[in-house]
Amino acid sequence: MMKNDLLLQDDLAKELYSRASSLPLIDYHNHLSIPALAENRTELDPAALWLTCDPYKHRAMRICGVEEKYITGDTDAFDKFRAWCAVYPRLAGNPLCHWAELELSEYFDLDLRDFPINGENARALWDVMDRKLHGGRMGIADILRRAGMIYSAPCMLPTDTPPDSAMPEGIRVVPSLRADTALAPDAVLLQKLAEQTGSPVRTVGDYKAALRERLRVFEEHGCNVMDISLDAGFRYREETVPDTAAAEDCGREELAGEMLRFFGVECRERGWVLLLHIGALRQTSPYLKRVAGAAGGFAGIGASVDPDDTARFLRSIEAKDGSLPKTLLFSLNPADTVPQITLSGSFAHGQVGPGAPWWWNDHLQGMTDFMEWMSCYGVLSAFFGMTTDSRSALSMVRHDYFRRTLCRFLARKVRAGEFPADRDVLGDLIDRVCFRNAADKLLPVQ
Amino acid sequence: MMKNDLLLQDDLAKELYSRASSLPLIDYHNHLSIPALAENRTELDPAALWLTCDPYKHRAMRICGVEEKYITGDTDAFDKFRAWCAVYPRLAGNPLCHWAELELSEYFDLDLRDFPINGENARALWDVMDRKLHGGRMGIADILRRAGMIYSAPCMLPTDTPPDSAMPEGIRVVPSLRADTALAPDAVLLQKLAEQTGSPVRTVGDYKAALRERLRVFEEHGCNVMDISLDAGFRYREETVPDTAAAEDCGREELAGEMLRFFGVECRERGWVLLLHIGALRQTSPYLKRVAGAAGGFAGIGASVDPDDTARFLRSIEAKDGSLPKTLLFSLNPADTVPQITLSGSFAHGQVGPGAPWWWNDHLQGMTDFMEWMSCYGVLSAFFGMTTDSRSALSMVRHDYFRRTLCRFLARKVRAGEFPADRDVLGDLIDRVCFRNAADKLLPVQ
Amino acid sequence: MMKNDLLLQDDLAKELYSRASSLPLIDYHNHLSIPALAENRTELDPAALWLTCDPYKHRAMRICGVEEKYITGDTDAFDKFRAWCAVYPRLAGNPLCHWAELELSEYFDLDLRDFPINGENARALWDVMDRKLHGGRMGIADILRRAGMIYSAPCMLPTDTPPDSAMPEGIRVVPSLRADTALAPDAVLLQKLAEQTGSPVRTVGDYKAALRERLRVFEEHGCNVMDISLDAGFRYREETVPDTAAAEDCGREELAGEMLRFFGVECRERGWVLLLHIGALRQTSPYLKRVAGAAGGFAGIGASVDPDDTARFLRSIEAKDGSLPKTLLFSLNPADTVPQITLSGSFAHGQVGPGAPWWWNDHLQGMTDFMEWMSCYGVLSAFFGMTTDSRSALSMVRHDYFRRTLCRFLARKVRAGEFPADRDVLGDLIDRVCFRNAADKLLPVQ
Repeated sequence: MMKNDLLLQDDLAKELYSRASSLPLIDYHNHLSIPALAENRTELDPAALWLTCDPYKHRAMRICGVEEKYITGDTDAFDKFRAWCAVYPRLAGNPLCHWAELELSEYFDLDLRDFPINGENARALWDVMDRKLHGGRMGIADILRRAGMIYSAPCMLPTDTPPDSAMPEGIRVVPSLRADTALAPDAVLLQKLAEQTGSPVRTVGDYKAALRERLRVFEEHGCNVMDISLDAGFRYREETVPDTAAAEDCGREELAGEMLRFFGVECRERGWVLLLHIGALRQTSPYLKRVAGAAGGFAGIGASVDPDDTARFLRSIEAKDGSLPKTLLFSLNPADTVPQITLSGSFAHGQVGPGAPWWWNDHLQGMTDFMEWMSCYGVLSAFFGMTTDSRSALSMVRHDYFRRTLCRFLARKVRAGEFPADRDVLGDLIDRVCFRNAADKLLPVQ
Repeated sequence: MMKNDLLLQDDLAKELYSRASSLPLIDYHNHLSIPALAENRTELDPAALWLTCDPYKHRAMRICGVEEKYITGDTDAFDKFRAWCAVYPRLAGNPLCHWAELELSEYFDLDLRDFPINGENARALWDVMDRKLHGGRMGIADILRRAGMIYSAPCMLPTDTPPDSAMPEGIRVVPSLRADTALAPDAVLLQKLAEQTGSPVRTVGDYKAALRERLRVFEEHGCNVMDISLDAGFRYREETVPDTAAAEDCGREELAGEMLRFFGVECRERGWVLLLHIGALRQTSPYLKRVAGAAGGFAGIGASVDPDDTARFLRSIEAKDGSLPKTLLFSLNPADTVPQITLSGSFAHGQVGPGAPWWWNDHLQGMTDFMEWMSCYGVLSAFFGMTTDSRSALSMVRHDYFRRTLCRFLARKVRAGEFPADRDVLGDLIDRVCFRNAADKLLPVQ
Repeated sequence: MMKNDLLLQDDLAKELYSRASSLPLIDYHNHLSIPALAENRTELDPAALWLTCDPYKHRAMRICGVEEKYITGDTDAFDKFRAWCAVYPRLAGNPLCHWAELELSEYFDLDLRDFPINGENARALWDVMDRKLHGGRMGIADILRRAGMIYSAPCMLPTDTPPDSAMPEGIRVVPSLRADTALAPDAVLLQKLAEQTGSPVRTVGDYKAALRERLRVFEEHGCNVMDISLDAGFRYREETVPDTAAAEDCGREELAGEMLRFFGVECRERGWVLLLHIGALRQTSPYLKRVAGAAGGFAGIGASVDPDDTARFLRSIEAKDGSLPKTLLFSLNPADTVPQITLSGSFAHGQVGPGAPWWWNDHLQGMTDFMEWMSCYGVLSAFFGMTTDSRSALSMVRHDYFRRTLCRFLARKVRAGEFPADRDVLGDLIDRVCFRNAADKLLPVQ
């Protein structure tokens, strides 16, 4: 009883999808609000639910020449909604159309063939969405639960306080730790850590001790994922910084290298998964930074990074027996994905692998390329699985989108004689990639 | 009544192509000769028309081991023509075969299925082409007009004199300004500018004033496109060079940065389109440079460039309100296209976008990849459109080739369920990409 | 009478393959053992034949989390064999499955549809393979002969002694010279050369003279291929090192540049083919280096290399008349392949071209991408042809795999209207790419 057959064009694809879609969801890195999830908060209106937290839509409108006040500015919510609808027909082929189709079909019972999105329809669409939104069971937790989510790990900073409140039924909500701000701390961070831990934080040794204490607190709250963003231009430095050095006086790059090793070893010893998000180009338009704010969706893709940087980092945290933390490499520049996948065979025990197609790559083409590359430069069934990295609850449909893409990919490959038609083999692959590989590592042992 | 159904394999592709092919052509950057266009000059013989100005053919012959005297040397024209024909059967799969098919079908009523190109047929083919060439209505302007061209912008240097002569009926021929030689001027250029403007050109301030005067002259002649080639190895420098500095004594790289900003701001203020052609590797074989001359087709593809370079340049010419010149980024290394397309969402008002698949990328595969990437990393309907960058009038069929490729791409995507089958949406996309986006910016308001 | 129709899904593919598969094989670079070939040595057991020399299998097992003792460790041979079989069902889509299908079908008369590989079947499979292996005519030379091999060039170091023993009937076994260890010699190498040539080797001039003597010896043994590996991080230096400099005291990078030119000019003058293997990342896991040994399959793909490095090297060994050695550029990072293919049109006389899809790229996807890129950035029919670079005799089926991939590629392109359906054209292309281009250069004139 499939509501929507987007991307599922043949019987095998549909058959495989019926298996994939029955599996629970794990979203191991996102930017949802834990308090909002705990409260099962309902968004104010369709614009707040659908547009405000989605930089992909902002970017598409911008590319089409829409003025910023209708995108991230303070124009009236409906006017922004209408501006988005008016641009929609020009986005044919963009993943936003596929996502919209899934979002509106899954949560609003709308079929875009009957109810096209455009400027003229904007008011009618707003009304339908608004009615549904306030008709009950459309809180953030409801949306996640409906998608089949059982584990969600919104990220928090080391100095944030993981919540003690009761979490929504059926979903394991735990923080993931975003550590990159701690690679080169400023005085404010050091002061805050000193307050939180009750000890002065002056030397690098103090700093590590304070962070270890924070990691312990996070671990008590179920955290088992750490995320570090290594933006465009970052180069890994191997020089050791002694524990006696003053935390504030170190060279920033040397200290970043030292702390990266510190976090890497902590993850290895605690059994956490380490996510490296590599290559974002954060400095683009000064105007957009001013008017759209830090999360205004204006980041670009940085230059291809040197795989040797990653290899040197991994070498330096490898234990005598070859152990490493489970490390997922997310590359923003698609030219980096093949070298990173290949690196997975260059370290022992299956501990290094690519992350999910990330950010500007998480569309049909980016995911299909990724599956192709994983098949031939790595092992597709070893893929750790999709995560959204999203700020928006509706974006959880991107897991569904990933599963459709996977089943379409497999069905095509079977038809081309490249994959075996063996249902056991294909089913096992789907189970691993859509659920089991992540579940084995992230869910508590039953 | 389609003469040739190259690449159009299904009904939808043909239907879409009938729309695309009815639109007029705009070629906003090429190397045609304006005097030759004004005179509607007819080429001397088939070799001069078909081979001499086409480095793609030179390269293919070279790769097949043909000696240079039959390619760019001073051998008899027919012997070169025969050498080209003899190599032709070995080029299966190369875009040259597709272009030849379109050129011979469109301008010489030849169907390659009846009249294969090979060494044995060379004389017969020469005779047919020669007769047609001298049978009337085969001047350069005739060829362009037959292709549907209504705007052509051959490039000229700042010190060149834009022509005042009457232009061929039906085609708006205006110069585009090629500014890269002016990034780091030598004494000869400064002297020539001094003569043209009647004032001494010693300081950077003088130099900018003289260039402003030249831009004014070009603008009077209808110029609204500036082209700057940033070859492999170029790095953008942000240091300011004061107007009081001596133009000849500045560090070349610093001055190039300063002048790039100067040209960027001029384009922004004049409403010109700025084309950045990025990444050509000009230094390859010394032998070929000597025997084949500067335009001998021996340039290669340089290393992938750092998108941060482009971002820093754009940041530095962005106005307070986010305005930029309409800027098209042409990448020679295909690994740079995705980062550059992504950059289009990182600046406001839709002013930054990719240029057309350029030079060694303007074939079926390169254009199809581009359309794929535009669809998912950008917005395909926002693409500014094709241009040839060519020295040869016959090469204008590459617009037709682009349109076939686009219609094939769309038809396949509709069949795969990735694009909507909606004729209004598809038709609007075709109109924008094949004509309207460029027309809105480049043609005078009607 | 095709035993296996892997990848051949339509009539045209099968028709083309029947032509391709009838051509003899040339393997111009591999790591087979010349003594083992001369003796037609038979491997000890199925593990030694099938697993020990295949780093691809090691990597896939590693990625799946198998402990290293079952991969490259000293566990019992059958236990390793079983560990491999147990992992096999998880490798769907990986080229190892395609290779296994061809290896088992060609040499063991096994059809994987009847005899699936998995942990349970491991013993049965071992028994079948073991019986066949020791049933006669399964020596290394037998395996190569059965594959149709007529030229095989295992690589040797300059100080190795090319064998004088009789070679297996029907196969021309000649050494290829691996010269990269000689780019920056240590005292041991200099001493050994002094002993071999009977003259002291102190200066760069002495060193070149000694190497010239070794090249002469190799040439006497039929060698006409030189291989140089330029690992990740290598930068070509143009500075001249005088012949009077002490060989040991030179800067390593300057001397490497000098010696690269020396070897390049030697290849040009001797008519040898020069293979440049570019971009391996050799430093990855210290643990794997320790336990798996130098050829443990842990190399990764290095950063994209600058095509200007290659261009500068080629410029500096170009003769006045444009001559160069036939030079094949093997890129490990797939982002480098298009720039390298394009470089083939940037030097005269068809002397520069890409090598075969190499190492982690020699699978269906990597080879298909390569054929696509060769078609549009170069000339497909000019491709020099496949080589295995392998340590394992069974891996010679990768030539068969390449031919299937080529025929599938061509059949698809004909169907899409991109290649002509002309059998002469396609047949000629197949002959050149699968045999003639390499044969014309490498086999003695008949």
